[in-house]
Amino acid sequence: MEHTRIKELLNSEEFGKEIVVKGWVRTFRNNQFIAINDGSSINNIQAVVDFENTPEEILKRITTGSAVRVKGLLTESQGKGQRVEIQATDVSVIGDSDPEKYPLQPKKHSLEFLREIAHLRVRTGTFNAIFKVRNALSFAIHKFFQEHDFVYFHSPIITGSDAEGAGEMFRVTTLDPINPPLTEDGKVDFKEDFFGKSTNLTVSGQLEGELAALAFGNIYTFGPTFRAENSNTTRHLAEFWMIEPEMAFYELEDNMDLAEDLLKYVIKYALESCPEEIEFLKNRLLEEEKSKPQAERSELNLVEKLNFVLENNFERLTYTEAVNILKASKPNQKKQFKYLIEGWGADLQSEHERYLVEKHFKKPVILTDYPREIKSFYMKQNEVDSEGRHTVRAMDILFPGIGEMVGGSQREENLEKLLARMAEVGIEPEEIEWFLDTRRFGSVPHSGFGVGFERLVLFTTGMTNIRDVIPFPRTPKNAEF
Amino acid sequence: MEHTRIKELLNSEEFGKEIVVKGWVRTFRNNQFIAINDGSSINNIQAVVDFENTPEEILKRITTGSAVRVKGLLTESQGKGQRVEIQATDVSVIGDSDPEKYPLQPKKHSLEFLREIAHLRVRTGTFNAIFKVRNALSFAIHKFFQEHDFVYFHSPIITGSDAEGAGEMFRVTTLDPINPPLTEDGKVDFKEDFFGKSTNLTVSGQLEGELAALAFGNIYTFGPTFRAENSNTTRHLAEFWMIEPEMAFYELEDNMDLAEDLLKYVIKYALESCPEEIEFLKNRLLEEEKSKPQAERSELNLVEKLNFVLENNFERLTYTEAVNILKASKPNQKKQFKYLIEGWGADLQSEHERYLVEKHFKKPVILTDYPREIKSFYMKQNEVDSEGRHTVRAMDILFPGIGEMVGGSQREENLEKLLARMAEVGIEPEEIEWFLDTRRFGSVPHSGFGVGFERLVLFTTGMTNIRDVIPFPRTPKNAEF
Repeated sequence: MEHTRIKELLNSEEFGKEIVVKGWVRTFRNNQFIAINDGSSINNIQAVVDFENTPEEILKRITTGSAVRVKGLLTESQGKGQRVEIQATDVSVIGDSDPEKYPLQPKKHSLEFLREIAHLRVRTGTFNAIFKVRNALSFAIHKFFQEHDFVYFHSPIITGSDAEGAGEMFRVTTLDPINPPLTEDGKVDFKEDFFGKSTNLTVSGQLEGELAALAFGNIYTFGPTFRAENSNTTRHLAEFWMIEPEMAFYELEDNMDLAEDLLKYVIKYALESCPEEIEFLKNRLLEEEKSKPQAERSELNLVEKLNFVLENNFERLTYTEAVNILKASKPNQKKQFKYLIEGWGADLQSEHERYLVEKHFKKPVILTDYPREIKSFYMKQNEVDSEGRHTVRAMDILFPGIGEMVGGSQREENLEKLLARMAEVGIEPEEIEWFLDTRRFGSVPHSGFGVGFERLVLFTTGMTNIRDVIPFPRTPKNAEF
Repeated sequence: MEHTRIKELLNSEEFGKEIVVKGWVRTFRNNQFIAINDGSSINNIQAVVDFENTPEEILKRITTGSAVRVKGLLTESQGKGQRVEIQATDVSVIGDSDPEKYPLQPKKHSLEFLREIAHLRVRTGTFNAIFKVRNALSFAIHKFFQEHDFVYFHSPIITGSDAEGAGEMFRVTTLDPINPPLTEDGKVDFKEDFFGKSTNLTVSGQLEGELAALAFGNIYTFGPTFRAENSNTTRHLAEFWMIEPEMAFYELEDNMDLAEDLLKYVIKYALESCPEEIEFLKNRLLEEEKSKPQAERSELNLVEKLNFVLENNFERLTYTEAVNILKASKPNQKKQFKYLIEGWGADLQSEHERYLVEKHFKKPVILTDYPREIKSFYMKQNEVDSEGRHTVRAMDILFPGIGEMVGGSQREENLEKLLARMAEVGIEPEEIEWFLDTRRFGSVPHSGFGVGFERLVLFTTGMTNIRDVIPFPRTPKNAEF
């Protein structure tokens, strides 16, 4: 290839060298200055056109969004805000862009508008930065686990099990949608379906992950998961990516240590490998917050916030301790919470999590030992305490502005206790015989957790709507592109 | 954690040190020698039990599949085949395994049997090796692209588009399977479905990948893809993982260079990071081939075969050249091909690909410039040649024993040509307006390809059935676990 990527040129010192760039025009000023971006950097390179010696029919085709090839000399820039530029000797248009029709104009567009043109928003500085950070976080996750000798394990996406228990599922089928084959008693005959039974999209790879952990020791998954829930919020997607490590011989403390290490590692990696992108996002956020009243603005800017997470231990406390703090809190006393905390046992709402994280501790918090009734059947049961309370070895990590970033637990490794709990919540052992085999043959203490990847990207980029951190969000009534 | 992973101990020189291991019993011989595996290595560590001073009730619970904790001194082994062992001072059983019921006995099981207990086969040496290689290849793919400054891009899994054109699709729905809502004219009312329209599982992220390439320059996807095809072969899965890079400003030659570099890089990485696993798989294959007649055995063993790929350039030729070779070939002359090659234009069958790769060139082959009629609508059209033949800038990489490992092309960047071809094959522009925008606004030459990840694992592990290289295979009438 004859051309050099702009990121490389922006860092180059080879002034006077003849180079070729190819990219898209962001702006063209005074018939002379083209700001060119090829996606390799959020920053553009400026090409200075000798407009007197460039044909008029070329000049008028240099429009926002068009693709150009520029040959010229790399020079030290005299202008402000850039170190290098190109003195163009030859400019040609590779692909035109009709400025009357191109939806991205060289001005600020709202995030709402950009969501409607998600196929083009990737060409903006904001989304370049977001998806570069997303890329860095993805790689950091793999790097962390590989360095810790974990096996990346692909749990299935299509599942015949409906005991995953994490939420509503999407059905996967090839049956005729209007005239499905029926059994003699008038039900849909799923034996005729592609997989010979009813199948769904996975809501979690945990159960399969446990099988693998009890073979390889330490494993992790990183793949798409699905929830068919009608949640139109800024924190929920119907299709999202999740990381689910699972570790043999890990108890709850080990589990928390690993999760905290992982989060710090990947945020640090993003800060180090995407300094320009995060700086850009920091400034975007500062700009956005200018329109808010002083009281609603963040105390820390994005970079400070990320560093704060790196530099502080997450606060660890039990659910019971958290409930005591909440009960005594001002918003509870003054009845400002929508759901008042009156006693032990209730699930915590977003308002309570935010109070703990953002007001009380002002840092990430790990809550442990939740009431058994509000958690999943597979979590390890604690001894019943002196007040008769049943708790499980769960841990949720709560982040400022995000809420639950991680949900995990030590798993119940005792077959009898597990079966008893399954009976209580109504899961038939036949449904997951294969899973129960892990408790029949060489069962060991083990633990794991799930990280909602988009929530991690949300936190690291400082964005506030989860639809802005995944390329093509899937939400109720929306599966465009 | 108090214990040390076995992989570490097997490489340790700290003789005399007191250590703890935790793992699963593979065998227990003479009431004295426990072979313990914790999944960190395909190799076991031997613990020598002082059986005279170990209670009988412990000894009899040390059975194949049980989980044990062994405390003892790391010592230089006097036995054959191992460098270190543990002189146990304390042995306890963490989790029992009833030897009458545990399906994995210390003997050779057939791959067919192991497929039926896929939840336990991960505890065998063979599958430990396979999934460690799979892990290494996965990471190598990310490492390669990150080193080349590509952006990892998550294309959607649930898609509202049915123009991906790569195969039959699975429907994703939350509608009542037996009484779906109907429109006035008696059709299923997909407006009532979760996403407000009919949606499917993706067969390829390419179209979205192209959008991203024309924003970031170079991107890759690595995620699950789906085909609802009733193919019960050793090379097809209904759910499989695919890597799809897409590069702006790449022409067909660049595309081939990248694909060849990628494949060599990841195979080299697997060889270097999994030497023991690949050695194990090499020996497994040699053992398996002993039962075959001499003529059917491989000329090269697994390690030689992998190195052969690294050390040789892939053979590059056009479809037309390939057809000429096949027409003149012995099996065609002697009518040994099931499908005889009589002229230009036919799609190549597996037997033809195998002849070219395994008999004629004896190395990976890249075929280019296929007839337009047998390839996808989005491939860049060549000029019609002097004989009136329409070809496209396609490239398929064929591997010995595997067939098509990679399928790719330069893409048609010209809007008019693309629309004309879509009209010929019956794709409505309205279906993919968003995709066509890439050709309307700053269109540039670009290329990409798809790598079938399981085929890559198949080749690198020397396995022959694709169901053995993914943890839980999904095939017609099978979605167990």
